[in-house]
Amino acid sequence: MKTIHPTEWQKMDKRVRTTFFNLLSGFKSPVLIGTISKSGSTNLALFSSLVHIGANPPLLGFILRPTTVARHTYQNIMDTGSYTINHITESLFQKGHQASAKYPEDVSEFEEIGLDSEYTSFGPAPYLKESPIRLGLRFVEEHIIQANGTRLMVGEVMEIQYPEEMVVEEGWFDPTSLGLVGVAGLETYFTLHYLDRLPYARP
Amino acid sequence: MKTIHPTEWQKMDKRVRTTFFNLLSGFKSPVLIGTISKSGSTNLALFSSLVHIGANPPLLGFILRPTTVARHTYQNIMDTGSYTINHITESLFQKGHQASAKYPEDVSEFEEIGLDSEYTSFGPAPYLKESPIRLGLRFVEEHIIQANGTRLMVGEVMEIQYPEEMVVEEGWFDPTSLGLVGVAGLETYFTLHYLDRLPYARP
Repeated sequence: MKTIHPTEWQKMDKRVRTTFFNLLSGFKSPVLIGTISKSGSTNLALFSSLVHIGANPPLLGFILRPTTVARHTYQNIMDTGSYTINHITESLFQKGHQASAKYPEDVSEFEEIGLDSEYTSFGPAPYLKESPIRLGLRFVEEHIIQANGTRLMVGEVMEIQYPEEMVVEEGWFDPTSLGLVGVAGLETYFTLHYLDRLPYARP
Repeated sequence: MKTIHPTEWQKMDKRVRTTFFNLLSGFKSPVLIGTISKSGSTNLALFSSLVHIGANPPLLGFILRPTTVARHTYQNIMDTGSYTINHITESLFQKGHQASAKYPEDVSEFEEIGLDSEYTSFGPAPYLKESPIRLGLRFVEEHIIQANGTRLMVGEVMEIQYPEEMVVEEGWFDPTSLGLVGVAGLETYFTLHYLDRLPYARP
């Protein structure tokens, strides 16, 4: 094994170090977060930091960096209290990745990228119509990471939309049946293939 | 699309709801977290909530539930200030899953499951020798989620170990070259297949 320490990565170029450390956290699900501003501008932003926080009540978290396009997402969540989390598929990931570009505040990523918004009674946040699994959340709490100023945003799931034909048995479904993709780091996408479903582990 | 609301999932059996909401956060990397107690007992616990928090300094987070075996992990991190994060592969995930069982505090998962610990000068936390990518972290800060009492644990990467033969170019490597697996929910494992590496998105 090769072993490296801070003295070695402190010498790395900033972009190289960012690439490397983003990959070290492994695989995630890329999701598009939909919000709307007080003045009615819609926003769609790519995140790969979704984390399960609890099932009862159903809570999800994601990490918001202090200085990115994601500030629109943050402001909209604070102003409206709602946002949507939209999973993305193999036919959607290229357009989804484009939503990580830094568009001006008055530009809707839906229009620029050619994606469709959809609204339910959950509102006011827009869903991504092309997404096969969409969650509507209300903002619950935020935690600022002192070490670097990023935020953990915590929300409660208030609405779930999924395909009529998706088979859910005892709460379980196969995410590969929907063509969902995975992502590692900032830019590398993967398809997933079912390996095994293991029983609850006992000593 | 099928649309459901809290009234529908509040009727679900607790275990069914837990299965369902864990799956809704999508794919993650299962990792084994290695710690050691003040009295020298080693501990290895399975987590699937790893999240990238920053690259400079390199920070990683994970979610710790209030009432699980993971309390050993928590106490050990608090007592020693250090822990290791060990990625797991296709040949390792069954043993790794077994580390989610609730063993008594004085039982070492390394011995019970048949896995090997390894120490470096980073210590005192043990690495999982069988893991192809291992990170040594020092505890930085914790945040308690008010809504359900779970904790976000934040640590700084202080040491990285990876195979000599792993190709790292400009900070990038292919995680599938190491046979790393993905997980969705509490129990369903996947292999990953490279799809595409997309360029930095610009408006």
